[in-house]
Amino acid sequence: MTGRVCVDGNEAAARVAYSLSEVIAIYPITPASPMGEHADDWAAQGRPNLWGEVPEIVEMQSEAGAAGALHGALQKGALATTFTASQGLLLMLPNMFKVAGELLPTVIHVAARSVATHALSIFGDQSDVMAARTTGWAMLCSSSVQEAQDLAVVAHAAALESRVPFVHFFDGFRTSHEMATIDPISDTDIGAMVDADAVLAFRSRGMSPDRPDVRGTAQNPDVFFQGREAGNPYYAAVPSIVARAMDRFFARTGRRYGLVEYVGAPDAERVAVTMGSGCGPIEELVGVMVGEGERVGVLKVRLYRPFPSELLVKALPPTTKAVAVLDRCKEAGSVGEPLYLDVRAAIGEAMSVPPGEAPFPQPPRVIGGRYGLSSKEFNPAMVKAVFDELAREQPKRHFTVGIKDDLTNLSLDWDREYQLPRPAGEFQAVFYGLGSDGTVGANKNSAKIISTATGQYAQGYFVYDSKKSGAMTVSHLRFGPSPVRSSYLVSGADFVACHQFGLLERADVLAVAKNGAKFLLNCSWGPDEVWGHLPSRMQAQILAKDLEMWVVDAAGIAGAAQLGGRINTVMQVCFFALSGVMPIEAAIERIKGAVEKSYAKRGPTVIERNFAAIDAALAGLARVQAGERAVALFAGDGTGTDWLGAHLPQQGKSPDFVQRVTLALIAGEGDDLPTSALPADGRFPAGTSKLEKRRLATDIPVWDPSICTDCGKCVIVCPHAALRMKVFSPEA
Amino acid sequence: MTGRVCVDGNEAAARVAYSLSEVIAIYPITPASPMGEHADDWAAQGRPNLWGEVPEIVEMQSEAGAAGALHGALQKGALATTFTASQGLLLMLPNMFKVAGELLPTVIHVAARSVATHALSIFGDQSDVMAARTTGWAMLCSSSVQEAQDLAVVAHAAALESRVPFVHFFDGFRTSHEMATIDPISDTDIGAMVDADAVLAFRSRGMSPDRPDVRGTAQNPDVFFQGREAGNPYYAAVPSIVARAMDRFFARTGRRYGLVEYVGAPDAERVAVTMGSGCGPIEELVGVMVGEGERVGVLKVRLYRPFPSELLVKALPPTTKAVAVLDRCKEAGSVGEPLYLDVRAAIGEAMSVPPGEAPFPQPPRVIGGRYGLSSKEFNPAMVKAVFDELAREQPKRHFTVGIKDDLTNLSLDWDREYQLPRPAGEFQAVFYGLGSDGTVGANKNSAKIISTATGQYAQGYFVYDSKKSGAMTVSHLRFGPSPVRSSYLVSGADFVACHQFGLLERADVLAVAKNGAKFLLNCSWGPDEVWGHLPSRMQAQILAKDLEMWVVDAAGIAGAAQLGGRINTVMQVCFFALSGVMPIEAAIERIKGAVEKSYAKRGPTVIERNFAAIDAALAGLARVQAGERAVALFAGDGTGTDWLGAHLPQQGKSPDFVQRVTLALIAGEGDDLPTSALPADGRFPAGTSKLEKRRLATDIPVWDPSICTDCGKCVIVCPHAALRMKVFSPEA
Repeated sequence: MTGRVCVDGNEAAARVAYSLSEVIAIYPITPASPMGEHADDWAAQGRPNLWGEVPEIVEMQSEAGAAGALHGALQKGALATTFTASQGLLLMLPNMFKVAGELLPTVIHVAARSVATHALSIFGDQSDVMAARTTGWAMLCSSSVQEAQDLAVVAHAAALESRVPFVHFFDGFRTSHEMATIDPISDTDIGAMVDADAVLAFRSRGMSPDRPDVRGTAQNPDVFFQGREAGNPYYAAVPSIVARAMDRFFARTGRRYGLVEYVGAPDAERVAVTMGSGCGPIEELVGVMVGEGERVGVLKVRLYRPFPSELLVKALPPTTKAVAVLDRCKEAGSVGEPLYLDVRAAIGEAMSVPPGEAPFPQPPRVIGGRYGLSSKEFNPAMVKAVFDELAREQPKRHFTVGIKDDLTNLSLDWDREYQLPRPAGEFQAVFYGLGSDGTVGANKNSAKIISTATGQYAQGYFVYDSKKSGAMTVSHLRFGPSPVRSSYLVSGADFVACHQFGLLERADVLAVAKNGAKFLLNCSWGPDEVWGHLPSRMQAQILAKDLEMWVVDAAGIAGAAQLGGRINTVMQVCFFALSGVMPIEAAIERIKGAVEKSYAKRGPTVIERNFAAIDAALAGLARVQAGERAVALFAGDGTGTDWLGAHLPQQGKSPDFVQRVTLALIAGEGDDLPTSALPADGRFPAGTSKLEKRRLATDIPVWDPSICTDCGKCVIVCPHAALRMKVFSPEA
Repeated sequence: MTGRVCVDGNEAAARVAYSLSEVIAIYPITPASPMGEHADDWAAQGRPNLWGEVPEIVEMQSEAGAAGALHGALQKGALATTFTASQGLLLMLPNMFKVAGELLPTVIHVAARSVATHALSIFGDQSDVMAARTTGWAMLCSSSVQEAQDLAVVAHAAALESRVPFVHFFDGFRTSHEMATIDPISDTDIGAMVDADAVLAFRSRGMSPDRPDVRGTAQNPDVFFQGREAGNPYYAAVPSIVARAMDRFFARTGRRYGLVEYVGAPDAERVAVTMGSGCGPIEELVGVMVGEGERVGVLKVRLYRPFPSELLVKALPPTTKAVAVLDRCKEAGSVGEPLYLDVRAAIGEAMSVPPGEAPFPQPPRVIGGRYGLSSKEFNPAMVKAVFDELAREQPKRHFTVGIKDDLTNLSLDWDREYQLPRPAGEFQAVFYGLGSDGTVGANKNSAKIISTATGQYAQGYFVYDSKKSGAMTVSHLRFGPSPVRSSYLVSGADFVACHQFGLLERADVLAVAKNGAKFLLNCSWGPDEVWGHLPSRMQAQILAKDLEMWVVDAAGIAGAAQLGGRINTVMQVCFFALSGVMPIEAAIERIKGAVEKSYAKRGPTVIERNFAAIDAALAGLARVQAGERAVALFAGDGTGTDWLGAHLPQQGKSPDFVQRVTLALIAGEGDDLPTSALPADGRFPAGTSKLEKRRLATDIPVWDPSICTDCGKCVIVCPHAALRMKVFSPEA
């Protein structure tokens, strides 16, 4: 047992916000929703904040209302917070300008998400917070779950002390939804971080009939400008206030943060600058490259507003010759993205000093790139491409990485085979499931169990489809003896599980498996009969990679235990049995504990059924001996014998666009589509959902005319209008 | 007669937008309201657009709704527009991201206004449009009324051709509300500017059951990034499309515009860069300084997004050594304001080329300044301070101009006496009136009369108080043989009129008068008795400046003609009589024509009464012989004998803040308050409106207990709660 906990970024930040707030105005929006939901839940449980009061949770009609409620609470002198993302943050902007102008200390915690443009996206990038950088709010960025907790404390403390409101943000999904083992901060430490005098001063500025004043005035040209500049000293003080808060935080917790942080060779020539979860793969790669003698480094930006220009330039090695600034957003029509412009200005200003005082003998070359839009993968191979570009004689001034741009040729190529060596003792696992089948929940639970039972550090990241229920989910788990900083997807997995046989048709589930890995498949075929039912591509992979394959009839076991389709606990037991990350008995005990906790309100019968399934799971687990590769029922390699090709007569008739794009999207090959394949204005051909046979149902209804009463309700309930009603005249 | 018209920026832009639109979604907001109001008015009159249809005007529930209606209309393939400012634009941001992402061509015309921060302000700066620069809209800036018309045409044409939506903006009030004589563009020319094929293509992309497609999709990490980059070619094409549209515009109208435009010495060393109405005083001063052999210049930015980096750098003289970028906005916490960052990046990128190819032998020093926030005056004296700063060895890297910043010492001092010589043949006039007393309306009418009757160029600018009705208005009029580019307040006026005697107590109305100017005062005292009633400061000014003073009892004349307090036409006649800008008979004829037009719907009686007042005006006009300076009833110079000092016993008891700040604001001396005087968070002491005795009423009600029925309605109607009701028991 350690004092550590395994939580996601949302929970880590929300806990701090909850402890330090009296009013929490919410209007949940993906991927920030869990922060509001946690707060609501905790308040319902009567959990107190640091002052022993249960915060008031107010759900408003929109994020605009949440921002208004926040603004009002702050004017009254109540410690208040909210959580949001994307368009939600946009709706808060008018109030944010006011809150900053009125020097009202608060923190909005943002799980940064794409703003909808040519298409909506629920996924993560920083286009929302960048659209808020004009508001005059301080901005502090966390790049990991641990930071999401720690910098939340710093943000609240610094806001109260400086009177400047803070946006505390971290990357949506990549950090907000990543489960990670972190050192929790105690209420005592949170309390110690907050200056009681600052709280008192804030409260005493609250509106009260006892000390009336006038706020929200209208000003004319005579004094508005002066009033606007009168706030300058408060902004000038913010960086040192944040730095001091970080120092106090270090003194109490041993975890040190800087406004900016340089990692790499002291004599680096090539430096990447970014903020957020993108720091993870860069820092990992820099570690490896420096070990190989390369002069590279990374500058991580934490305080983004007020922008610490001088500190940033000082943090760069004087040997720096080329800088790549990486922005996780896009501003069409600008010279470059926000962080790029800021770093350029900071370096430009630093060079504009009397001769001899410049930080660099020659101004470093600065280039800017976009990456990771809408949770696009950003891994060490892509970072490598950036450092390679920096080494060129004439690098691209502006670039993208992570995609193929064949329209404007801004994209960098990267070596898709490039992988960093994994840390010793680490175990990587990938699970394929369906939204709502319990796979993700079971994996979160497994991460918590391993984290708390073994003292190992866990990381769980879950790739969702925005179609949510019924769409494929891929869980990426890592466990190891040291904190996991790999904020990118697993490759070279030690263990792969597929919880739904049907997924074999559409996903290349074994691509992530390393040689000799274990592969667990849920299917109704026994170990002796399953081989012939596998796609031929998979047979080939199992043979080539020498995988150790296991099957379990989880649906059968769950069905026998009267659990319906809830296969998650069965699969979880099998994972523990095969992975060996901890003794299976101890794991089963904890799984049962989790079942008792989860289903307590459903009564003992449900708990007993789960226990029965858990106990039966191990007995059902069987090893498969690989056979010869044969032409199987479907190839699974896009050669035309798979489900898309064999089962969909439409394909041959589809217009060219549908062939090239829509079917590729459905096949899960969207990542490989170049920019030229995508409609620039977001318009797609209609009538293509019929091409996406998701085949989720284990049973298919068949119409029995002999008992049909013509009530017509089937037409009403069919969500896809596959059943249509027609009106005939009585004669017909 | 010329073909010219005298209109304000709002009308100039609205006319173009109206001609080119089928759907106009409105939610009027100051200072953009007149654009929506004009459109509504024209549609009510049945005025057709260029295609012979009356546009549909839709007033929504907020600017968010207007943006949604605009978005919907565009998706249907209807040419659509809207008008907004400030928070209104903020509410449009979510839809704007979508409209740009979907490549829907449209133009939002923005009368740029401050965003509310520590205080609300209805006045002009560019903080609103800068908050929209992240949306992916192209942005085109007009710096005068003529440009507001001309670039509106360019914006609509370029949007249709490029498919990228445009924000077309100009400074609120300074341009939106400035009356100016401009060359109107004909419907034929507007039509010729618009590519019919582009209109057809746009319509054919509209949603239709005949060609269904899917829009507004949600995209996942697999393709969102590629989709976002697929729009790049459209943005890359915008600058040349705008340039070509400007070329076509020149060919048809003879008026040439560039994406950026440099004016000044070809070998300039010091260059100012800005956009909007601030270009006016800079260009004027540069003209004078270059004439004196100074190596200075100004770069005017018109296309702000996509930012034309390379063109901008090329437009700067290669001799440039120091650049001051002037932003009319403030982004607290940023390295510098938006245009500063962009210009820095543009120059930085241009210098980052192989040796020998850099545009400048040495990188020019770049500094950034804020000016004109919330319609703060920006005149040649302030511009001079900027050029002086650029000449220093170590100029301030960031500065403000137009205020005194004694907190952070960013402000530049300027010579308040510095004035540029006025163009030959120009006539400048200033009028003091009260909101709703008709002064502004009469002056707009005078500007139109002079403009159309004499062929002179007119400029009318009107300084309002946000308290609107009953607050002081100051009208600044200029007339002359050439277009008036002085986008700043009049000083050294040839003519000053005060339409309300009470204003003499609170405003230094003669400060703007040049030596020998004419001064017209509306008062009930005759020419022989008025002298002793003038403030002693004013007596001194009249003597020192040798002013020619005239009086007229406009209220008496209007009263005799049964016009109540409508003194505007009487004063207007007197202005024409004294100014001599055109023959008085012709002026009277046109004033009567305007009366007939304005009051046609009120019937012949009202028109006849106005005619009677007009005819009586000249007879009532009388010259005043200045007497000796005497200690008058009130000094008017803040020495304690004026109304604030003499009539308000509160002053002595007011807290220090009220003494220093509130009373200075009320006295109209707010412009001189330094930053340290202003509350940084916008909080003011309460209960100070009693200090602002506006004394607007010419008659004061007195309670007559003998006829009071105790109905209590006086308490209900008193807007200032000066009458209070108390409940007593019957015994009392």
